[in-house]
Amino acid sequence: MHTLIVGAGSVGSMYQIMLQSKKNGFSIESLRYGKHKFIPDGVYSSCKDASTGQEYDYIMVCTKALPNIADPAEILKPVIKSNKTVIVLVQNGIGIEDPYVKTYPENPIITCAVYVDGKQKPNGLVEHGKLMELAYGLHKNKKGDNSDPFKNGVISNFHNILTSGGITSIVPTNIQKLKWFKNVWNAAISPMSVISGKHSGGDLARNPGTRSLLIKAMKEMIKVGETATGGPLHDKLSASEIPDYFINYTLSLPEPFILSMLQDYLNKKPMEHHVILKNPIDEAKKLGIDVPIIETMYELLIMAEKKNLSSIDKH
Amino acid sequence: MHTLIVGAGSVGSMYQIMLQSKKNGFSIESLRYGKHKFIPDGVYSSCKDASTGQEYDYIMVCTKALPNIADPAEILKPVIKSNKTVIVLVQNGIGIEDPYVKTYPENPIITCAVYVDGKQKPNGLVEHGKLMELAYGLHKNKKGDNSDPFKNGVISNFHNILTSGGITSIVPTNIQKLKWFKNVWNAAISPMSVISGKHSGGDLARNPGTRSLLIKAMKEMIKVGETATGGPLHDKLSASEIPDYFINYTLSLPEPFILSMLQDYLNKKPMEHHVILKNPIDEAKKLGIDVPIIETMYELLIMAEKKNLSSIDKH
Repeated sequence: MHTLIVGAGSVGSMYQIMLQSKKNGFSIESLRYGKHKFIPDGVYSSCKDASTGQEYDYIMVCTKALPNIADPAEILKPVIKSNKTVIVLVQNGIGIEDPYVKTYPENPIITCAVYVDGKQKPNGLVEHGKLMELAYGLHKNKKGDNSDPFKNGVISNFHNILTSGGITSIVPTNIQKLKWFKNVWNAAISPMSVISGKHSGGDLARNPGTRSLLIKAMKEMIKVGETATGGPLHDKLSASEIPDYFINYTLSLPEPFILSMLQDYLNKKPMEHHVILKNPIDEAKKLGIDVPIIETMYELLIMAEKKNLSSIDKH
Repeated sequence: MHTLIVGAGSVGSMYQIMLQSKKNGFSIESLRYGKHKFIPDGVYSSCKDASTGQEYDYIMVCTKALPNIADPAEILKPVIKSNKTVIVLVQNGIGIEDPYVKTYPENPIITCAVYVDGKQKPNGLVEHGKLMELAYGLHKNKKGDNSDPFKNGVISNFHNILTSGGITSIVPTNIQKLKWFKNVWNAAISPMSVISGKHSGGDLARNPGTRSLLIKAMKEMIKVGETATGGPLHDKLSASEIPDYFINYTLSLPEPFILSMLQDYLNKKPMEHHVILKNPIDEAKKLGIDVPIIETMYELLIMAEKKNLSSIDKH
């Protein structure tokens, strides 16, 4: 089996090491898996270089989702030789599949809800906590309906690959519901952590004013997600229980819990606001739902990013 | 006539020099009035020190309005000997009169909409542009109705004093409408200038995303102001014309136009968010009007202030 992992950040490296074991290259320290080192079969600086003539069975896209900066589907062109290659999008956010559906309408696309808590340090060491599981589903449409997913060979094979690599494989009946569920929290807390003056998740969840604002913002997202996917986002939690669930989850994390969007901002890197905020806002507009809090935070955030990125050389 | 000016910042100094001429003390450079220096009859470090036995005819309060930090009416206790002393609140914002009404229910209160464009520099020099006018009215109630104001001796006297001092005196029929009108702009643009990553007024008015957000935020405030005061906020501008008016006004100012709230933030000083945002939000709640954008910005702003002020000694 040939797998190409695009994006050698913390998420990509963790998947690489679990799926293939060799020596040297990246070092990973994981609470769950211990210390690991690996060399991939090949390391390429671009997809063009990775186009070695062979056909890849799976291409796992583990880059940040930044469709506002460049069309992410374009980048894969040199390595997708036929419609047999399965494109696996290991990225959070809403509408991430759109550019790939447009450019590769015949290829199977697997879309994921990501739970790796990895963080890559400057020396190439990847710190990894306890979480290594992947929830995913075959992407059919925005409603995400994926009934009887194991009848589909693509999903069964991928499930076996993950499982034999020691990764917890989760195949929900509706992957889009799970992605929206995660995005409820992400869309509320991530921009707030930046524009409230660089606060940790715990700060925002503890402070009464921002906690109340978080809850209201999550309610906006829940309404859009439920309408977009045609029903409740979670099997066990009702819409009214979801905000409290995420507040308690946030309070349970070790502090300071720095959201990855804030990490990007502090590192003067582009933030994933397009798939976390803009696509859901556009979906809300299409559905006629008002999301004033999310929209306000989005506009403030991109204005803040404008100044933040202009203070360094573009990369 | 004995006047006490509380607060020797840029606003207080400008009024002092216009109302009284002596030599030495403060230096003022004004495009409208040229260079001035003056020594007040007395300079006191507190109202307690200013309590010299004499009764003041007017007390002009030119401090920042920070009722969230301390009760501003308490500070005047040593200098208010009777209900004859007129309290003049030379401060922008909504609900600034409440603490004074509560503590001095029998004293006449004049409340103002301030247009001084003064800025005090570290060396005591006050830079003043072309604007020196005061719009004011006798404060009766929150509706601000002040019909036939010149029949009231307090207003007539104050008008004469200002006019003889070369200050343009404006007595609108409803001072609260004018204060709300000014606050429409202030509530929208001031917090945004801080939490969008420290942008100038022109930046926010030019950038399409924030311009559109400014307009929506102003519409929220217009609705609250109109409901609170019982009708249109402006004689000539309709509700739908007000946002464009302020956008164009902002674009007409020399850049970089740094809002005073952003100046305070950059100087790590408390911001006037209580009278510019919180009091209008509370008023909106009382009236059953949703102001999600203003509320979102308020919560983000006070969270940002928390971190900003905690990084210095309290003063």
